[in-house]
Order: sequence, then C-alpha cells, then structure tokens
Amino acid sequence: MGSIHDVALENNNVACQPNPLDPEEFRRQSHMMVDFIADYYHNVDKYPVLSQVSPGYLRECLPDSAPNHAEPIEAILQDVRNHIIPGITHWQSPNYYAYFPSSGSIAGFLGEMLSVGFNVVGFNWMSSPAATELETIVMDWLGKILNLPKQFLFSGGGGGVLQGTTCEAILCTVTAARDKVLNKIGRDRIGDLVVYCSDQTHCALKKAAQIAGIHPDNIRALQTRRSDAFGLCPETLRSALADDVSEGLVPLYLCATVGTTSSTAVDPLRGLCEVAAEHDIWVHIDAAYAGSACICPEFRHFIDGVEGANSFSFNAHKWFFTTLDCCCMWVKEPQHLVNALSTNPEYLRNNATESKKVVDYKDWQIALSRRFRSLKLWMVLRSYGVANLRNSIRSHVNMAELFEELVTKDERFEVVVPRNFSMVCFRLRPPLGGLSARDCGLETTNAITKRLLDAVNATGKVFVTHAVVGGVYLIRFAVGSPLTEERHVRSAWMVVREQAEALLAEFKVHPVMQEQADAVLTQAVHG
Amino acid sequence: MGSIHDVALENNNVACQPNPLDPEEFRRQSHMMVDFIADYYHNVDKYPVLSQVSPGYLRECLPDSAPNHAEPIEAILQDVRNHIIPGITHWQSPNYYAYFPSSGSIAGFLGEMLSVGFNVVGFNWMSSPAATELETIVMDWLGKILNLPKQFLFSGGGGGVLQGTTCEAILCTVTAARDKVLNKIGRDRIGDLVVYCSDQTHCALKKAAQIAGIHPDNIRALQTRRSDAFGLCPETLRSALADDVSEGLVPLYLCATVGTTSSTAVDPLRGLCEVAAEHDIWVHIDAAYAGSACICPEFRHFIDGVEGANSFSFNAHKWFFTTLDCCCMWVKEPQHLVNALSTNPEYLRNNATESKKVVDYKDWQIALSRRFRSLKLWMVLRSYGVANLRNSIRSHVNMAELFEELVTKDERFEVVVPRNFSMVCFRLRPPLGGLSARDCGLETTNAITKRLLDAVNATGKVFVTHAVVGGVYLIRFAVGSPLTEERHVRSAWMVVREQAEALLAEFKVHPVMQEQADAVLTQAVHG
Repeated sequence: MGSIHDVALENNNVACQPNPLDPEEFRRQSHMMVDFIADYYHNVDKYPVLSQVSPGYLRECLPDSAPNHAEPIEAILQDVRNHIIPGITHWQSPNYYAYFPSSGSIAGFLGEMLSVGFNVVGFNWMSSPAATELETIVMDWLGKILNLPKQFLFSGGGGGVLQGTTCEAILCTVTAARDKVLNKIGRDRIGDLVVYCSDQTHCALKKAAQIAGIHPDNIRALQTRRSDAFGLCPETLRSALADDVSEGLVPLYLCATVGTTSSTAVDPLRGLCEVAAEHDIWVHIDAAYAGSACICPEFRHFIDGVEGANSFSFNAHKWFFTTLDCCCMWVKEPQHLVNALSTNPEYLRNNATESKKVVDYKDWQIALSRRFRSLKLWMVLRSYGVANLRNSIRSHVNMAELFEELVTKDERFEVVVPRNFSMVCFRLRPPLGGLSARDCGLETTNAITKRLLDAVNATGKVFVTHAVVGGVYLIRFAVGSPLTEERHVRSAWMVVREQAEALLAEFKVHPVMQEQADAVLTQAVHG
Repeated sequence: MGSIHDVALENNNVACQPNPLDPEEFRRQSHMMVDFIADYYHNVDKYPVLSQVSPGYLRECLPDSAPNHAEPIEAILQDVRNHIIPGITHWQSPNYYAYFPSSGSIAGFLGEMLSVGFNVVGFNWMSSPAATELETIVMDWLGKILNLPKQFLFSGGGGGVLQGTTCEAILCTVTAARDKVLNKIGRDRIGDLVVYCSDQTHCALKKAAQIAGIHPDNIRALQTRRSDAFGLCPETLRSALADDVSEGLVPLYLCATVGTTSSTAVDPLRGLCEVAAEHDIWVHIDAAYAGSACICPEFRHFIDGVEGANSFSFNAHKWFFTTLDCCCMWVKEPQHLVNALSTNPEYLRNNATESKKVVDYKDWQIALSRRFRSLKLWMVLRSYGVANLRNSIRSHVNMAELFEELVTKDERFEVVVPRNFSMVCFRLRPPLGGLSARDCGLETTNAITKRLLDAVNATGKVFVTHAVVGGVYLIRFAVGSPLTEERHVRSAWMVVREQAEALLAEFKVHPVMQEQADAVLTQAVHG
C-alpha cells in the first residue's frame, strides 16, 4: 500500500504511461502471442498429456505479491513456458482421450479473438444489435443442420440461445419449468416439486435442481439396466411418476440424455417424452457431447423424438470446434424463460426493448452480462462448412472404431458397452494373467483396471479417464481432439497394451508361490 | 440433409480436409485477425458509438442457412466489416460513457488468447493444475492489493475464485447461505427465508434470489433517501429485520453495494454488517464497478467495514482491464460454497481430490466447466504493475472531475448526486429555456432530459445512458473506456451542450405564442 507520498509520485506519471489499448502496441504483442500459441501447437504432442506436477508447485515458482511496476511481455511468456505449461493438462494434445474432448479450432479461436477484441456486453439488443441478431441467425442455422423441429427455431416461434455450459442450460430450464408450475399451484409448494433423471445423467442436473431450490429428496435418479444399454426405460419413469403423484408430490422436469458421460448411452427420447406428456412435465434433452454427431444424417436418429421435448442443448465446445465455452440451447416456448429470468430495472429501459421487436437475451440466462459467443459459432460454420464438419465428426468416429477393433482383437481386453459415437469403453478381461477365475471377481478386475489407468496416465504419453457403469470399472477412450490422427490412436493402443503387459506380468507367478501371488493381489486391490 | 449418396461422397474426402488446428494455418489466419483488430482500434472513434441499425437488419444481410462448403477467412472478415461492425455498439470507443465501462486492454486480450489457445477445462485441480493454482495465487495477490482482511485470502483460511459475472457470484453465495441455514432449520422452511437489499441494489440480487427459490415476496428492497446519498441506512435494515423476525420469517442474506449502478452510491458497510451480525445473516458486498478503484489508497475507505462481511466481489472486466468476463469473488468460509455446490460423480474421482490437498473450483461455482480466466488477470497485473493500474483508475477519475466541472459551470445543467468515482450524474436544471418555473415540474424536466439523452445518442458521437434516482431522471456519464482521453471528454461535453441548446431553443417562444409553447411542451413530455 502506498503512502501519501507515493500517491503524489504516482500521480505525476498519470500522463506518461502508455495507453493499455494502444493499437500499435496491441499489434506488436498480439503477433508475438500468435507465434507463441502456434509453436505450442507444434510441440503439444511432446508434453506429458496429464500434467505431472504436485499440489502447490506453482506457489514455489511465483512471487507472493503482484509487481508494483510493469513487466515486459517477453518475461511473462518466459514464465508461461517455464511454470504454466508444465502445470497444464494438454486438452489440445493429439494424445488426449480423457473426459470428453475440448474441441478447439482456428475458426473458434478467431471468433473468440474478435469477440474479445470488440469486448461488447450484449445483455440486450441495443447494447450491440449484431451480438443478438447474429446469435438468433446462427442458432436457426444450426437448428436446421440438426433437423430440429421448426418449433425450436425463431422462424417457428421458439428460439436458440448460447449458454456457457450445460449446467447453466439445465438451471435456466429447471427454473423456467418451476416458475411455470408454481405460478399455477402456488409458491408455497416448491417443496413438492420432483425432478427426474437416470442414474447415468450428468451431475449437472442434481446441482442445478438443488440451486433452484428443489428439495434434495425430490431428485429421482432412476435406475438403468445393462439390458437397456443403460438408457432410461420409459416404464421406469412411468412408475416413478405414479408413485410420486400418489404421494401428493408434483412431477416437474425430466432430463433425458443423448450420450451419457459414463458410457455415451442414449435414453429413448420418444418413449420418455410420451410418458412425460401424460403428466405435462418439462422435458430437457442433454446431448452435451453427442449432439454434434447428430449433424450427420447417419447419427440423426439418436435424437429422434426430440419433437416431444421442451428444450434441447449440446456443447459446441465439446465436439464442434468452438473452444470453451459455447452451449447451444433451444426452447419451444422462450416465454417461460423470460417469465422466470427477466429483470427490467429503469437503467436498462430503452426504446428498442419497449418496441417489443427485439430479443433481449439477458432474460434467457442467469447472468445479465454476456459475451459475443455467436461469432465463434458463425466462424466455425463458415470456415469449415457443413460437409467438412460432418467429415470431421466421422473421422473421429472412424478412429474410435479402429481402437475398438484393436481392443476386441486382443483377448486380454474387452469392450464393456456398445460404442455409439467416438468413445470406446473397455477394461481388462478376467481372468487376468495367472490368476484363477475365482480370484478375478468384480472387485479385483475393477481394481486392476484402475491400476492400468493410473499406469497409462503416468507415462504422460496418453491421458484417459474412467467411469463405473453397472458396477464395472471401465476406461473411457474418447476420440475428438482436433489434432488426433490414426497414428496417434495406434500409439495410444501400444501404450495401453504395454502397460497391461507389465501389470499382468505381476500375476504370472508359479503355483508354488501362491502366497506371493496373494500378496500382489491384495496390493492390487487395496492400493 | 444429405442422401446416402452424399454421405458416401463426403466420406471419400475425410482424409483430404485440412486439420482444423493446423499450426501453420493457425499462424496465418491469426496474424490476419490481429491486424484486423488493431485496425479496428485505430478506427473505432470514427464509428457511431451507439449502433444505428434497426431491428432485423442482419437477417437481410446473411443467408438463411449455413454454407455447405468452406469459405475463406478473407470473405468472412469482409462480412464482419460490412455487416457486423455497423451493428456493434462500440464499448471500446473513446466516446463510450454508457452503463459501466467494459474495460479491455492488450494484456487482457493476450490472457484470453492464451486461455483459448490452451483451451483447458479446469473444473478440478487435476484437469489442469496450473489453472487452479494460478487462480488461487492471483486472487491472493489481488486481495492484498485491495487490502482485504486476511480471512478472505487462501493464506488466511478463506479464498478467492473467478466467476463469470456478479450475478453468478450472488447466486453462489445466496445458495451457500440458504443451505447453511436450511441444514439447521429444515429444508421445508425455504419459503420463510428473507433476502435484503436496497432500492438501489443491482437487479442481479433479485434474479439470483428468485433462481435460488427464495419466495418473491421475501425479497426486501429497502428504501434509501437522498439525505443518505442513496446509501442503505443501517437503522432501516434493523427495523426490517425486526419486522420479519416478528412475523416468524428467517433473515438470510444482505447484499450491500459499493458503487450502485444508478448513481455509484455507497452503502455504509460497517453499520450494515453490525446490524446483520445481530441476526447472523450472510453479508455479500457487491463492488462490481467501484471495487477496482479501491486498489488506490485514497479510495480504499469506501470498503472499510468489509471485514464484517462473508463475501466480496467486483468485476475486473468493468474497470480493471481484463475484458469480459472476470468477476473476482472472495469468501471467508469456502466450505459453505462447497457444501452447497459440490458434486462428486464417479467419473470425476481422482487421487489429487482424494488427497484433500487441492482446491476443485467446480465446487465454488454454478457450472462444472470453467475457462482459464486467471491468465488474463495475471497478465494484467504483471503487464501494467500495481502503480500503473492505480494511475489508470486515477486518470479516469480525473476526467470525470473535469466533466463535472464543465457541467457545474454551465447554469443550464446540474449535477444530481455527489460524484464518488468516475461517473457524473447530471440533468438539465429547471426552469428550462423560456418555460416558467411552474411548467418545469419533475415530470417535465425528466421528460426533457430524456429527450436530451436520445438526441445526444442519435448523433452517434457519444453514448450515454440514464437512471432514475429519487424520482429524478438523470444522465450517467461514466468514464472508463481505456482509449478515452481528456480531449474526448471535452468533445463529449460539446455534443451535450449543442444538443441541449437545440432542445431548449424550442421553448424560447414569445409570450403571445403561449399556445404553441404548450404544444411543444406536451410533445416533449408525452413524446
């Protein structure tokens, strides 16, 4: 903190300092940053995919407080190289197969640059008409590519909006559904509302419902079965609805999923929407990952039945090249969003809004402020064109097929659930190595597959993550990083195989050494 | 939608298409975009600040659907020039004085580029350790610059987090406060919880409280008075709390503001926190705009009393050069956020989280996914240094002082409320032109000041917005766009004066033409 003397000294310099947005300095430094990032992409396959640092590593590299005086960009970039990059898990690496992809592209990057460059705050139409209008146009474009029913498009009385994430999309629609019902039955009954999903639904649903004040006991994660490929059976929903109604509760909302996080399972939309309609509950379809695939005619059938839903969303930042964050959401009746989320303070009143000829997107989302996200979606659609975008999706699916084939051909492994899109779920197939079938129960196989996952990730050559489905621990291999090519997938398979060989070798013990084998097994299972 | 034949055709091209993240193509196109944006900054003062387009203009310029084939970046940039820029309200223009500033800078832009380039999804520590660790470090740096009490820093048991916007910050803290109380008194009492603010508080509070399921009747916008400079009087709060408690309701949360949107009024934090403590309610301090100024020792007193609050936030994207979006929030007890917002699905389990040695920011916010926002804050702090940042704030305040002086010296105008930071609230001073004092009641003066605002904005040379405080319609002149210099402020004043002269000339009628004068007045007031 400065003394009064410092303040006076600083004040003398007010006029001399460079403008923080000086165009020529902007040009110089931004060109430098472009080269830095281009070089990063050249080298990204050489870094350990999963960062290998330990908790607290960065506090040891950086000072305890911000500098008082300006530092040159060169020094900052040096620190990025030395201290930040080692702490990054490289989602843009061609060897990244974890979670779901975070899909960057040149067009997505340029769209963000332009959005950040303009730096407009498009909460209402007037604050930057192009920001609102481009979003309505691009959401109609994308809705048509997905062959969404006309009621979801602006041209059909509905409309699309860009949220940051699926969590926000779900929170907005739960809130809209909630207020629609409470306005009828009375605010005091908030504790009676019930929200439905499956035990495979993303945790965003539970979190959003809780934020919206739904009683935690009233969030039903309905059980799925292997025999339904972990999709939610409409009869299960029907029975849950009947139970709740008989208890005097009020069914509110169903979140159905196309492409679950654990295993890319697909809920049967048509059947679920029919059951939901019997109780007039809001149906939201979360196609966060798999929605992108549905731009291909051969995958479109996965969202058949969407016409029965109230809202639909997918994350263009996952598998549609826009960079984080860009969740595309459509609703049939925007008025329910507006009723629940609008604010009309005096300081935002303006003639355009009062003319009722414009969309004010602040009333379709949680926050007031919003970035000009549609630029990146527009640039992706134009820079690549629909045909190339479909082909990119297909090339990822083809690579996943290749990996699936490699897994299937190796008898030490098995594919756990059918592959729908570009993700393969696999595990070690019992019996393992020299272990007897008796020793290879579910717990053991799970524990050893987890050890395989850790070993693969520790190589730094590949990053994969896991899920547990129907009690089975599986490794998820999700293809979708833009830089991934067939050769990377083949290398990844080599890494998995090598690590599995090393691991299984531990169990190739001679029968007389059974005691030692037991010890190894105990270690494997209990860590 | 393609036929099967098309699909086959497209499939043949899978291998030939360029990689969407090809480093050399990335370099080429990104350099082009840098130059495009640098040129935009060179010319931004030449565009009408407030976009002059009409609703629906863009649908007439763009095709009805996305292109099937790729288009070159040159064609897209041409469309940005021809169709997007005319529809932009130029928040980066030096002649922008509306709402609050959206403060861009070279460092903020570079930080975003880097964040988008890495495109990591930092929901938990493991997903990119640097993203989490840099955020904890930079939030401690910034907390120290603001001289926040140690309990708000990680080094003191609290901690900071970057939210997108203040709306999110408020929603997260309302939810945390809500669950803390409901876990004690029972979930069924959600309808009894009461949230407090003043009639000057930003609409984000009401929206967040409603999303969180607080009964709309239980949001108290307590009246402020001109005699308190529109700050919330602690006695008003005390009395409201007592009333609610006597009704059996449960006081939950107070949002106090430092620098209100309408007039940059400041609530007396110390007194409010003392009253709030009597009922153990959560106090959040929203310093969205004015928090940035508090890095200067001479403005720090405006947040005196923050030590009594539970959480504090300000928007670095408003007046701290980070570009949208970057809301800095600190809490004393992060555990309450985690209790309300955490999710622990199997597919996110990992060894680092289980070691309990790391922060997983997904549990401090609404969404799961999160961008690497701390990069831009870090780059702003290092590129400029604390001394320059203070001086930038001061130069904006100095320019606002200058404008205030110009307004004060002209007897046709008056400053409506005392200026605290870099915003001047002014209006036409009655009596206006040739009108009698009798004719210049509040309604008339308000209506004519609104006409002045519309006339000023219609020139395209300046963009200002309005508020109504204590019934008085006023024009807000908020300095803070990075490119604004003293000469721009002087020009803006000339525009205001010229438009006022033209407007007031309408009322300089001869007494015998009283009928005509009445007609003009009616037109002025009723549009």
